[in-house]
Amino acid sequence: MDLPIAQLLVALDVIAAISFAATGALVASRKELDILGFVWFGVITGVGGGTLRDLLLGLPVFWVEEPATVLVCLATAIAVHFAAHLIEYRYRYILWLDAFGMALVSVVGTLKALDAGAGVTVAIAMGVVTANVGGIIRDTLGQEPSVILRREIYVAASMLGAAACAALVGIGADREAAALAGFGAAFTLRILALWRGWSMPAYRSRPGRKNPPTGFETRP
Amino acid sequence: MDLPIAQLLVALDVIAAISFAATGALVASRKELDILGFVWFGVITGVGGGTLRDLLLGLPVFWVEEPATVLVCLATAIAVHFAAHLIEYRYRYILWLDAFGMALVSVVGTLKALDAGAGVTVAIAMGVVTANVGGIIRDTLGQEPSVILRREIYVAASMLGAAACAALVGIGADREAAALAGFGAAFTLRILALWRGWSMPAYRSRPGRKNPPTGFETRP
Amino acid sequence: MDLPIAQLLVALDVIAAISFAATGALVASRKELDILGFVWFGVITGVGGGTLRDLLLGLPVFWVEEPATVLVCLATAIAVHFAAHLIEYRYRYILWLDAFGMALVSVVGTLKALDAGAGVTVAIAMGVVTANVGGIIRDTLGQEPSVILRREIYVAASMLGAAACAALVGIGADREAAALAGFGAAFTLRILALWRGWSMPAYRSRPGRKNPPTGFETRP
Repeated sequence: MDLPIAQLLVALDVIAAISFAATGALVASRKELDILGFVWFGVITGVGGGTLRDLLLGLPVFWVEEPATVLVCLATAIAVHFAAHLIEYRYRYILWLDAFGMALVSVVGTLKALDAGAGVTVAIAMGVVTANVGGIIRDTLGQEPSVILRREIYVAASMLGAAACAALVGIGADREAAALAGFGAAFTLRILALWRGWSMPAYRSRPGRKNPPTGFETRP
Repeated sequence: MDLPIAQLLVALDVIAAISFAATGALVASRKELDILGFVWFGVITGVGGGTLRDLLLGLPVFWVEEPATVLVCLATAIAVHFAAHLIEYRYRYILWLDAFGMALVSVVGTLKALDAGAGVTVAIAMGVVTANVGGIIRDTLGQEPSVILRREIYVAASMLGAAACAALVGIGADREAAALAGFGAAFTLRILALWRGWSMPAYRSRPGRKNPPTGFETRP
Repeated sequence: MDLPIAQLLVALDVIAAISFAATGALVASRKELDILGFVWFGVITGVGGGTLRDLLLGLPVFWVEEPATVLVCLATAIAVHFAAHLIEYRYRYILWLDAFGMALVSVVGTLKALDAGAGVTVAIAMGVVTANVGGIIRDTLGQEPSVILRREIYVAASMLGAAACAALVGIGADREAAALAGFGAAFTLRILALWRGWSMPAYRSRPGRKNPPTGFETRP
């Protein structure tokens, strides 16, 4: 990776961290937590996905190497604590910002995995992990249904972006072009879904044939 | 480890992955999720336990090295999406398949830890982690009570298998014999528990003396 | 680090593990689980925070290197299983013991991160992670609201201790003095909060302006 692109990726990572941290801090505002609750949720949501990506790839965790992202998330969470009433009122903009962050880190995660020598399957998985795991931890700890329990076009958008980017790099396209195409695909699909109210088709189980709710009860 | 055993372990890992991925995808069917929900739950349940095992042992994560297992889980989840109504009707067979997978990976996880130089305690822990953590993540994300909140004989069976295998290797038995004995112990105990409706005895707290529900409330 | 301090840290780690394992096992008693449930919750709570700390720092996981802590947590959990009715009756003492453990591992985690070459930000984060993540996993798996959803002065106390310790080491103070000051700050704040019933001030969102509960519903 030549240097200017590396610097650009760092800058974009910061923007993505801000958007993710804002969604985390807004969970804390819904739960009416204290300021440390805002900071926890902000930081965990902001760095969670990238942290798991780095652990899985066997790389040093990015924010342990260079903690600037943690401080950015911390500052974002504190800002949201004092301005949440303004942000909640403009919740639609947060969704747009979050779509931007999601599309960015899907591509960044994919490229980081490819740089670490991963194949296409693992690279796509890492893009999806980077984009979604922070939010999944946020919702699990916040006792809200996470993105994988809803039929929103969010995981699908990140997967499309990661797959487009990995495929283009795989067939020998410019990294810059592949990254831009992946970002564009993920962002466009997510924004269209938000704008048009699209959601994924649900699986419907046939009545009377559901598998038991707890899965493995030994006694009925 | 000589090569044929290594290959056999890979093949058995695939069977275990299919059974775990099927239980994950069936959570998605109970929740009536979209197809990506099936894939998420299938893949996370299929690779979750082995992933944590490898991270804890400081080894490269198995599916990042060789992503075949991820693709197997993906295919299983998609198959379940289109055939869940058939599988739900035969839920009993899934429980048997899952018992087979649990017994297998308990032993595989234990042997992998021993190969990595771990002692008996850590090896048993890794067998239990490999067999149970995928399902615990599945149930936590699916907002269902996980195996550790039920009194089912599941963790106990995996622990028995891991302990038998580690102990036999520890006293100098053949690896093959130890693996087979551990697998047999775990599988037999689990199947007996399913068949006879056995469960673990519950702890009963004395009335009126329960510790407070949230643990650390500063105000009563 | 010279040897006597290293040995002292190991001894203190054991005391902290006992206190954390006891709080984990008491969740199992509230849920009326079987003895393996006590062991799971005891071990996970006892080693969870230190495990994540080591993974994030890229160090070998402490209990995989030296599993004594796991055995201590195991023994604690079994002891609690047979004596929970006595312990529940003296719940106040567990809270004091837990405050002691929390203050200890906040400092131990911070020092371990500094020894691994981390800067002040990461070192504080590691102190907070070590002190809190075990309990967060305990509460998430136990389906109880975790410490980050309550306004208790617990995360704040560990952060104060970690920050005091890291700051003193940063300005060149003796490690022993820094550790003692950090421990004292965290323990004192936590005990004062328990004794006086202090809690953190809550954020109150303005009526009628809450952000939507699930965060990213595409359809209202």
